[in-house]
Amino acid sequence: MKRLLVTGAAGGLGRVMRARMARFAEIIRVSDIADLGVAAAHEELVTCDLGNSEAVMALVDGCDGILHLGGISVEDKFSKILNANLLGLYNLYEAARAHGMPRILFASSNHTVGFYRQDEHIDATAPMRPDGLYGVSKCFGEALARMYFEKFGQETALVRIGSCMERPLNHRMLSTWMSHDDFEAMIDCIFRAPMLGCPVLWGISNNDSRWWDNSHAAYLGWKPRDNAEKFRAELEATVGRPPASSPLALYQGGMFTKDPIFSEKA
Amino acid sequence: MKRLLVTGAAGGLGRVMRARMARFAEIIRVSDIADLGVAAAHEELVTCDLGNSEAVMALVDGCDGILHLGGISVEDKFSKILNANLLGLYNLYEAARAHGMPRILFASSNHTVGFYRQDEHIDATAPMRPDGLYGVSKCFGEALARMYFEKFGQETALVRIGSCMERPLNHRMLSTWMSHDDFEAMIDCIFRAPMLGCPVLWGISNNDSRWWDNSHAAYLGWKPRDNAEKFRAELEATVGRPPASSPLALYQGGMFTKDPIFSEKA
Amino acid sequence: MKRLLVTGAAGGLGRVMRARMARFAEIIRVSDIADLGVAAAHEELVTCDLGNSEAVMALVDGCDGILHLGGISVEDKFSKILNANLLGLYNLYEAARAHGMPRILFASSNHTVGFYRQDEHIDATAPMRPDGLYGVSKCFGEALARMYFEKFGQETALVRIGSCMERPLNHRMLSTWMSHDDFEAMIDCIFRAPMLGCPVLWGISNNDSRWWDNSHAAYLGWKPRDNAEKFRAELEATVGRPPASSPLALYQGGMFTKDPIFSEKA
Amino acid sequence: MKRLLVTGAAGGLGRVMRARMARFAEIIRVSDIADLGVAAAHEELVTCDLGNSEAVMALVDGCDGILHLGGISVEDKFSKILNANLLGLYNLYEAARAHGMPRILFASSNHTVGFYRQDEHIDATAPMRPDGLYGVSKCFGEALARMYFEKFGQETALVRIGSCMERPLNHRMLSTWMSHDDFEAMIDCIFRAPMLGCPVLWGISNNDSRWWDNSHAAYLGWKPRDNAEKFRAELEATVGRPPASSPLALYQGGMFTKDPIFSEKA
Amino acid sequence: MKRLLVTGAAGGLGRVMRARMARFAEIIRVSDIADLGVAAAHEELVTCDLGNSEAVMALVDGCDGILHLGGISVEDKFSKILNANLLGLYNLYEAARAHGMPRILFASSNHTVGFYRQDEHIDATAPMRPDGLYGVSKCFGEALARMYFEKFGQETALVRIGSCMERPLNHRMLSTWMSHDDFEAMIDCIFRAPMLGCPVLWGISNNDSRWWDNSHAAYLGWKPRDNAEKFRAELEATVGRPPASSPLALYQGGMFTKDPIFSEKA
Amino acid sequence: MKRLLVTGAAGGLGRVMRARMARFAEIIRVSDIADLGVAAAHEELVTCDLGNSEAVMALVDGCDGILHLGGISVEDKFSKILNANLLGLYNLYEAARAHGMPRILFASSNHTVGFYRQDEHIDATAPMRPDGLYGVSKCFGEALARMYFEKFGQETALVRIGSCMERPLNHRMLSTWMSHDDFEAMIDCIFRAPMLGCPVLWGISNNDSRWWDNSHAAYLGWKPRDNAEKFRAELEATVGRPPASSPLALYQGGMFTKDPIFSEKA
Repeated sequence: MKRLLVTGAAGGLGRVMRARMARFAEIIRVSDIADLGVAAAHEELVTCDLGNSEAVMALVDGCDGILHLGGISVEDKFSKILNANLLGLYNLYEAARAHGMPRILFASSNHTVGFYRQDEHIDATAPMRPDGLYGVSKCFGEALARMYFEKFGQETALVRIGSCMERPLNHRMLSTWMSHDDFEAMIDCIFRAPMLGCPVLWGISNNDSRWWDNSHAAYLGWKPRDNAEKFRAELEATVGRPPASSPLALYQGGMFTKDPIFSEKA
Repeated sequence: MKRLLVTGAAGGLGRVMRARMARFAEIIRVSDIADLGVAAAHEELVTCDLGNSEAVMALVDGCDGILHLGGISVEDKFSKILNANLLGLYNLYEAARAHGMPRILFASSNHTVGFYRQDEHIDATAPMRPDGLYGVSKCFGEALARMYFEKFGQETALVRIGSCMERPLNHRMLSTWMSHDDFEAMIDCIFRAPMLGCPVLWGISNNDSRWWDNSHAAYLGWKPRDNAEKFRAELEATVGRPPASSPLALYQGGMFTKDPIFSEKA
Repeated sequence: MKRLLVTGAAGGLGRVMRARMARFAEIIRVSDIADLGVAAAHEELVTCDLGNSEAVMALVDGCDGILHLGGISVEDKFSKILNANLLGLYNLYEAARAHGMPRILFASSNHTVGFYRQDEHIDATAPMRPDGLYGVSKCFGEALARMYFEKFGQETALVRIGSCMERPLNHRMLSTWMSHDDFEAMIDCIFRAPMLGCPVLWGISNNDSRWWDNSHAAYLGWKPRDNAEKFRAELEATVGRPPASSPLALYQGGMFTKDPIFSEKA
Repeated sequence: MKRLLVTGAAGGLGRVMRARMARFAEIIRVSDIADLGVAAAHEELVTCDLGNSEAVMALVDGCDGILHLGGISVEDKFSKILNANLLGLYNLYEAARAHGMPRILFASSNHTVGFYRQDEHIDATAPMRPDGLYGVSKCFGEALARMYFEKFGQETALVRIGSCMERPLNHRMLSTWMSHDDFEAMIDCIFRAPMLGCPVLWGISNNDSRWWDNSHAAYLGWKPRDNAEKFRAELEATVGRPPASSPLALYQGGMFTKDPIFSEKA
Repeated sequence: MKRLLVTGAAGGLGRVMRARMARFAEIIRVSDIADLGVAAAHEELVTCDLGNSEAVMALVDGCDGILHLGGISVEDKFSKILNANLLGLYNLYEAARAHGMPRILFASSNHTVGFYRQDEHIDATAPMRPDGLYGVSKCFGEALARMYFEKFGQETALVRIGSCMERPLNHRMLSTWMSHDDFEAMIDCIFRAPMLGCPVLWGISNNDSRWWDNSHAAYLGWKPRDNAEKFRAELEATVGRPPASSPLALYQGGMFTKDPIFSEKA
Repeated sequence: MKRLLVTGAAGGLGRVMRARMARFAEIIRVSDIADLGVAAAHEELVTCDLGNSEAVMALVDGCDGILHLGGISVEDKFSKILNANLLGLYNLYEAARAHGMPRILFASSNHTVGFYRQDEHIDATAPMRPDGLYGVSKCFGEALARMYFEKFGQETALVRIGSCMERPLNHRMLSTWMSHDDFEAMIDCIFRAPMLGCPVLWGISNNDSRWWDNSHAAYLGWKPRDNAEKFRAELEATVGRPPASSPLALYQGGMFTKDPIFSEKA
């Protein structure tokens, strides 16, 4: 690619992936609403509120691909989710449509299906069961992307990220963890594929204790190499196991299923 | 019921159903952002912008049931859809949560699945395939309602209305038509059921040429009596059949699959 | 048929069906552990404990068909269920195997699947979810019958009876009711079929509010004519609707899901 | 339609349908390899061997629709099946492709699935299980039609005819019978539909004892009115029931499952 | 765990697993109706007839987990199966309910599905097809465990053991074999899981020639390491392959599908 | 085996496999319509037109197994496909039926399902969607083999070969490639199995980018060892990736979906 846009690049996952993107394009356009620090030689920094349609239009102009990590990524006030994840996503897709429909990797979430029990094994056709306003916003995002695909041909990978971090932090993440290496490899598969379509992808490593089935998307050739299992012993020794009645043990969405809806007043 | 709220009561479908609601509750609270005319003896009229959270909070207060026909019901600028169908729906569910969780009939739409072909037969588990921004907003609404059901116990019927009007207006409506009588009977089933849950219901009469399967929801005892077939001969004589290549003949969403995304500037 | 055996003929359903069996065979062998009253001209009366293998062997001898209504038909002490529904059923199938394998209608029960919710629609392949010891004994019975079918060719209809009585007695029975006429018609279909196999049949009338799908068994040509819906108005006026949180509203098995396991000591 | 081609018009079913086709088009082109008798005012008679590609090319020229009943319709020597049902069908589709792709109703057969048991209920996605060379030729025909649909857009209805005759002749036909009226109504639905696609349709009346599910094709609006059940009493009185071990009682294909493969020498 | 109960510890599999249990709990309560030999330092020996409810009540008292290998494990007289596998299992679950519902691993069997053909690939939702009285008793056990789970919250792993032994003894066991190491690892996964639920697990190693799909239970993190394939060459050299018509080649249950029902008289 | 017949042994794949067959039988009967060169010590050479029934009858006589690679293996004139793949296959199965029903490996093709998109993941039950006359002829072959299995017990493996060659030649073959080693191992599994049945097998190596699911056939113990992924880097460097709109990127059948139907005149 000539130019890859990375949104949400100042966020937790964004910072990690930003550092790994150089090999994917000549120029990495790095964006966030927050401070992005200093640009590397191959980087363009753009501060941008996703809720601002003109800003987003400019942001996307000239890009061949978009790694969309931007937006609110936890439960929050609806006004914030609405601006970044609903209006912001619409702005992004309209901008993409206006600028040649660069391929998009959309960071969706396992919280679109958070109310499935942990003893259920599901695939990408399982009906949505979001566990909060954040999860609902990702259901919206997947529906929007699907519509742009069928109506205009815009390709998107809908990546339902589990827990993409250095290592699992609690017992539930033995199932939901995705290593940074595996995510980087997935990004490669998504942008190299001659034909992407608009698939749902479960963003997890090759964990022994997995709940989600990616076999429908084998055509992309993504084969995660890591396995959260290697952290089990240490994790059980330090963090321990949740009680059987905890949302961390019962639901795929974990604590999100119990998180409150945040008041606008607060 | 003591008091039933009807939103969108100044709209096309809203006016018809308003006139039939007297038997469902002692008081019918009738609401819209547009003019509602004169109140009948059993009616309370409330002008309300669904995007105004305080107004919606007051609107719902004291109601035992909600027939939610309000919001934008065709393709339109995203800013309008966002206010009425995204923010507005959030406001409605927060208000319901604050006021005893009255049962809700949510007017969803067949445009959540508009990109299925007309030679496909689907049921309520078919993955969403919305055909425009309006359809996407209804996907959002269904996801939001589902989340409030699983997280808080709020019951909603997600009624994917086909074409609820006096009679079918074109060939596609031989499949999608729902008579006003059948809709009224459905409303009765939904509010009388001891346990509703959060089902998807296809809002169509007992049409010979149907695409959608309601058998999963037979527990509600709804049995539509009308059949668009009786209009076929006259319809074919006056309106004729669409050409095979027309969206009216190809897609379940009909012309919506080809409607433009409306510019905010226009 | 020359001789049809009816077990459990002194029970509630047994008494009703006994009076309707004359047309099915020249001789009706009527059996129960309880008093059977006076034999009609076409009847043979046999008092029999199903747990007594020799008695059951004699009971079955000479019969061309068996309507097996016998055994415990509600939640009870396990010792009683074990004798009549486990040992008793084994005795019955061994006797049938020894005497030409007369076709059997086995009165199974909806309590094999009582823990499905009332807003679930299931068919005969749904995994078992029994709601008590009685339900478990019927799961055993279906498994036993299936084994005799596959191993020896013994044909059985596994009829999961809903609520076979004069009329629905509570709101749940608007879904589970089967009229006596419809059951009689089903018996006819089962014994007249050239090839029966070993199907599961849901024993319900053509109720609007049904949960169960019999389409897999249409080959038998059974078409129930009655519909519990006609009792709704009167039932709601007299008995009323259960609260949403009642097992009568939540689970297909109704109150059985909450019934205690009876102590052997009591 | 201007001109409808009916092939196989001298066959059993062909003669009956020929007499009912006048209302479907201005001109009915009637064809067979056998004698066709005298032409009615609206008819063109064409004697044609389906295995002759030039003759078939001329036969199709000028037609707006094709009711393809021609070919071998029972088990026969493979050389005959090969000429009429394999080569003949290829000739027909090449001719259609050369002449504007008139819509085709292809008379396929239940013998494509003859080895399913009669206690199995199947739909159009069930894998093929043909019961003889004739059934295999119909599998070929369905595959060929499907290919012309996907590759060129040629629309075909793949009608798996059960037993289309005056009345059921044996017990199995209580399940497989289709009345001539219902077939005529189906032909109307197929040719009137704005968009047909390439569906499989089970050609049976609304028989109580059916094995096949047409719900996927409800979009065509075909609703059979007849029911073989009305013939049961008389049929059982005259023809009787087959023994349980007879192919007539065991397999959907009936005796075809036991028919020999005919020797080329005979 | 503080105390783990192992039933059936004098049986073939019981003896092997007994020797491996020390690491799972401080105290292993070892039980059987047969002689148990000498207790190890960490063991309590209890002779117990599972059919004796008071003895079983005492047996379970004080245990945190139960590895239930007890009962009849091959085809036998029904009276013996009834005592140990039907009454015995009821006694065990009532005792568990009375004593804090310790988690149970129930040794079910592949003979619950023995009549599937070896060229069928099934998962845990496949309807039961038991191959004898023993298999039927395991269907009963699974239904009973499911009921205690749904009604009382009692967790059980329903392990359908294939052939758990030193090495495969015949050709069929290339598919059904489970190594002792893999079973031990499975026991670990079952008792360590924060939330178990009531899953069916196929008890087989990672055999190349497997028939059963465990992917639904991946959440437990069990990953068998052994593979019967390594024994193929030697097995084919010594034992050979069964003829194609042998139950050993045809049915998943192997010879059990042909085993007689044992006479009570013998 | 005593004698294995290899048809199509002068073709591309045939020459490779011929050289590997010595270990499978004492005598390899090698056949083609084209020149077969010089016989090895263990070989019998037979020139044979598959369309000649007497020649095929003699060809099969005395064989214990058949590796049927013969026939037309690309799109061609229908007259040639008809002779070799339709008539020829019938001749082969009639010859097998006359000579003890030796087990057959039938080289079917992925072009039976060529119109599935590359982002679809399918298994052996997916309805046929052939992409040309060649693909249709393989649908015929599978139907014919299935009929001989159900009617006469003739066992066949229906191997839908992807791209069996030295190495992948284009991007699509990263999904469809099967190494010669893996095919040889599959042949071994098919002929060694005590019971084969009539399964569909997808003929691909263990490619990361696969579209097809072979899990239903795990009972044969075939476990491909190669993976086209190792050729990706070089392939992308030399051949490159197809454009997104190319049939090579869109359809499982690749260019076959666009190949013309060859004129008989040419």
